[in-house]
Amino acid sequence: MPIEYGDFVRLEFTGKVKETGEVFDTTSEEVAIEAGLFVEQKQYGPIPIIVGGDHLLKAIDDAVVGLDEGDSKIIDVTPENGFGQRDAKLIQLVPMKEFKKQGMNPYPGMEVTAEGHTGRILTINGGRVKVDFNHHLAGKNLEYSVVVSKIIEDEEEKIKGMIQLHYAYPNLDINKTEIRIDGKKVSIKLDDITKYDQKSYMDITFARFRISKDIWENLDYEKVEFIDEFEKKEPEAETKEQTEEITIEGTPTEEITTEGTPTEEITAEEEPKTTTETPLESEE
Amino acid sequence: MPIEYGDFVRLEFTGKVKETGEVFDTTSEEVAIEAGLFVEQKQYGPIPIIVGGDHLLKAIDDAVVGLDEGDSKIIDVTPENGFGQRDAKLIQLVPMKEFKKQGMNPYPGMEVTAEGHTGRILTINGGRVKVDFNHHLAGKNLEYSVVVSKIIEDEEEKIKGMIQLHYAYPNLDINKTEIRIDGKKVSIKLDDITKYDQKSYMDITFARFRISKDIWENLDYEKVEFIDEFEKKEPEAETKEQTEEITIEGTPTEEITTEGTPTEEITAEEEPKTTTETPLESEE
Repeated sequence: MPIEYGDFVRLEFTGKVKETGEVFDTTSEEVAIEAGLFVEQKQYGPIPIIVGGDHLLKAIDDAVVGLDEGDSKIIDVTPENGFGQRDAKLIQLVPMKEFKKQGMNPYPGMEVTAEGHTGRILTINGGRVKVDFNHHLAGKNLEYSVVVSKIIEDEEEKIKGMIQLHYAYPNLDINKTEIRIDGKKVSIKLDDITKYDQKSYMDITFARFRISKDIWENLDYEKVEFIDEFEKKEPEAETKEQTEEITIEGTPTEEITTEGTPTEEITAEEEPKTTTETPLESEE
Repeated sequence: MPIEYGDFVRLEFTGKVKETGEVFDTTSEEVAIEAGLFVEQKQYGPIPIIVGGDHLLKAIDDAVVGLDEGDSKIIDVTPENGFGQRDAKLIQLVPMKEFKKQGMNPYPGMEVTAEGHTGRILTINGGRVKVDFNHHLAGKNLEYSVVVSKIIEDEEEKIKGMIQLHYAYPNLDINKTEIRIDGKKVSIKLDDITKYDQKSYMDITFARFRISKDIWENLDYEKVEFIDEFEKKEPEAETKEQTEEITIEGTPTEEITTEGTPTEEITAEEEPKTTTETPLESEE
């Protein structure tokens, strides 16, 4: 069955700048390594999307319609259909003193962020720093090679696909995620490890909202609920279990170190015993 | 009915240093303001605890047993029953250069934190800084005045009490929290505003764990689940609703600005970001 808008599929793709052949994005670990794009935390392999679901460039969605499982295609993307034309107004002169104020030492090629926009320093000249806030792929012709790795038919797999797409948590084991369907309601119990995510709850909420939105817009459900369950353990097992849950391997250290946590430098060898500040909170 | 261990109660209390009369903790907003302890984000009023549940000093739990609703009591707490005796080993000499290394300018009375322990600088002498890591109430006789504001009988109110105790989110409206009881399982749907908490998901998980543990250890349930629900809105209302949810009134600004979120100031990024720049993520 050829792909239609609204279908759930898994795609492999690699995007290149047409003129230079430079790879800028790929679902393949091998290609990523070769192109110097490899990121440890990223999960490689075909990505689950909804065709027409705005997960990739519209040009890719459109090109995929009509393909079948196993098909591949080369897609040419013009700047208009890609990341837009370059806009001269997005090249800005920033006084050097703005950088100095923040203890920064600008150099050409350095990436800077201002109000959520990422720019790249082009030149530095007489106390003025020229920053280009255009998307680095703006004005470029792109070429995507795409393979339809799978057309997802199974309802539960469709939902799991959306979880994987929107909830980019590298430790998530999708096979440990439980999906329960009850009429117009989908209940999702994610892999327990996700409970220890260091991201803010607000970020998690946005990811959950995106998952839910894709589910109710593209499948026949109206409610999506995420359930975190806590269960009484046998007295013997309880303490052990808890300790194991609290120390998680693979959690990045820099995320555990919070603001205000001092470095070890100030401390002497003798570790002072913790005492809670107020009697309100117990040690647990 | 006089209070027994395991009872859920609401207590008002004020803790003072016996020798000086200095108030160091209170559930009363008025007293807090008077003592200069007032904290904007804190919710004042009687706090819900389980007697013997380790939420307050054991000495307070013990003294409350046998009291009745409306009763009040003055409780004397010795250092042994309070925050311990002062320990000379917890007074440490730290070379001044350790502070300088971190761009800190120590002065007597300054609070410093090392490996999660808070200390107070006592003196500075010949390049050596004397830091006292004893709890500031160590070695002190304390006096708590306690009023049993309520003995909680209602099962749902007991659960809500534990939510309020462990989930200290100032925006939480406990009346918007739904509790559903089904056999041995308690389902909790918190006030929607909590979905936008800026705390890490891991912190939320620990709070939920503490709530669950108090519920299954003190009430007759074995499972506690927290449900976050996302519901399809009418097409018209949908976009509006979403926007409203994302901009929340009353959320403190400093909580919205997360690490890595660019401010209007210019921030350098050593490594180029992939996420927003690849076509993998839509703007949403």
